[in-house]
Amino acid sequence: MKSKLECIPCLLKQSLNAAEMVTDDQVVHEKVLKLVMKELLDVPLGRSPPTIAHTVYSIVHDVTGCDDPYKDLKVKYNGIAMGMYPCLKGIVDDSEDRLFTAVKLAIAGNIIDFGANIQVNIKKTIKDTLSRDFAINDYPSFVKSLEESESILYLADNAGEVVFDRVLLEEIQEYADIVYAVKKEPIINDATMEDAIFCGIDSLAEIVTTADTPGTILERCDQEFVDTFRSSDMIISKGQGNYESISEEPGNIFFMLLAKCPVIAADLGVEIGCAVLKRAVQVR
Amino acid sequence: MKSKLECIPCLLKQSLNAAEMVTDDQVVHEKVLKLVMKELLDVPLGRSPPTIAHTVYSIVHDVTGCDDPYKDLKVKYNGIAMGMYPCLKGIVDDSEDRLFTAVKLAIAGNIIDFGANIQVNIKKTIKDTLSRDFAINDYPSFVKSLEESESILYLADNAGEVVFDRVLLEEIQEYADIVYAVKKEPIINDATMEDAIFCGIDSLAEIVTTADTPGTILERCDQEFVDTFRSSDMIISKGQGNYESISEEPGNIFFMLLAKCPVIAADLGVEIGCAVLKRAVQVR
Repeated sequence: MKSKLECIPCLLKQSLNAAEMVTDDQVVHEKVLKLVMKELLDVPLGRSPPTIAHTVYSIVHDVTGCDDPYKDLKVKYNGIAMGMYPCLKGIVDDSEDRLFTAVKLAIAGNIIDFGANIQVNIKKTIKDTLSRDFAINDYPSFVKSLEESESILYLADNAGEVVFDRVLLEEIQEYADIVYAVKKEPIINDATMEDAIFCGIDSLAEIVTTADTPGTILERCDQEFVDTFRSSDMIISKGQGNYESISEEPGNIFFMLLAKCPVIAADLGVEIGCAVLKRAVQVR
Repeated sequence: MKSKLECIPCLLKQSLNAAEMVTDDQVVHEKVLKLVMKELLDVPLGRSPPTIAHTVYSIVHDVTGCDDPYKDLKVKYNGIAMGMYPCLKGIVDDSEDRLFTAVKLAIAGNIIDFGANIQVNIKKTIKDTLSRDFAINDYPSFVKSLEESESILYLADNAGEVVFDRVLLEEIQEYADIVYAVKKEPIINDATMEDAIFCGIDSLAEIVTTADTPGTILERCDQEFVDTFRSSDMIISKGQGNYESISEEPGNIFFMLLAKCPVIAADLGVEIGCAVLKRAVQVR
């Protein structure tokens, strides 16, 4: 997905948020903001938002000297989500359709996103996602694909959200071998190997790494990952960043996300705030 | 009030919104965005947000060739609000404290703001504002000032909102002579003379004009207005733009607003979304 002009002020805001995470020094904040503005002045919009975001966050890292501005928030939300795990399992246990409920919870967990300039209210999001219909609901073909697949690649999004993924992984592990992909290096509050292990994914799936960018930009991933991406029978793609970067890639991809930004909501044809389970089969 | 770094991405977003109001031509949108970015790169933050906003919207006007991008929205919201007028009067009639209810409604009307990058939901805002306590409530001294004043200057904010002001003006007109100040030229969706007359203010107050900027930047207003500002016994200041531009001016000023942006909310020490009736007496 290409970037839109709307992405420019949003990425600028994100860079300021990230700088404010690292330091209270307003001189540093201003330096980040101005360098990012200069960069964005000439950025080609043909690039996907995660590609531009990678450049923007690199500037934040360079100026602040901190390569993981969201470290504390990631630890905090891993803890919060782990504390909710028994409750999430209870919701699945008490439901009529365990798998569908786990899918809903995995999508609800996508609210834990500090790149989206939004308020994070987990409990309200869980309640809303459980009670409302999805704006796009390809659940029937999700179930069919699950039954037909021997290999699943699960593209993670954020720390904390990983616990919600775990609840879904526990429901689908019986169907196929699962590879769970996290970021190679810290970027925004995206999940890394450390987060995946902390949240207990290592006993459910093989954990691999993508790259140092938000989303999954295949050109920046190593060949082994690209081979896994190309050969998996089914890909579960969490969140906006993954959608932005692979929405035009071939594969049997199921996008699970909360539409939090107007550009992605418009691309999907849904309202902001909607839950989406969308199959996008592109011929290889 | 000085601008903050947070104002930069917000103003950039506003410029894009305004350009999109005028045309679907993305080349124009991009030209506006880039010229505004170049301008904002060197803008002194010592200026108030309305001063910078004036420069930003001037660029939008110059590039699009349209000096009133929000014209249609202003007409629309004048119509919507006029349609609500009988209902608003009914709420006042049925209330225990007519004046306090009219104050609440005048503040609720401040939701009609297209410079604030927010969702405009009038009915929900009325309901919330009527049922919740103000975050800052200087109503007792508002009543006392009203009883002691012979001249009141009422600084309007937005088109549509004017109808909500009218409901309050009808309750306070018995206390003092009222001057109602609107913008001299169109800027964002701020009320102009045309809007004030359409909403029936001319039978309740003398209508005067300020300048061609958001808020009330006294240096850009004519001497007659400044004299009125300096000599009025009481000033009722609606909305964020007026707060941003005159929060440090001397005078017996009552700010009525919904805190819609994080910078103003922080300056006032309240949460975003809160209703505020704040007296700020600065010695002349």
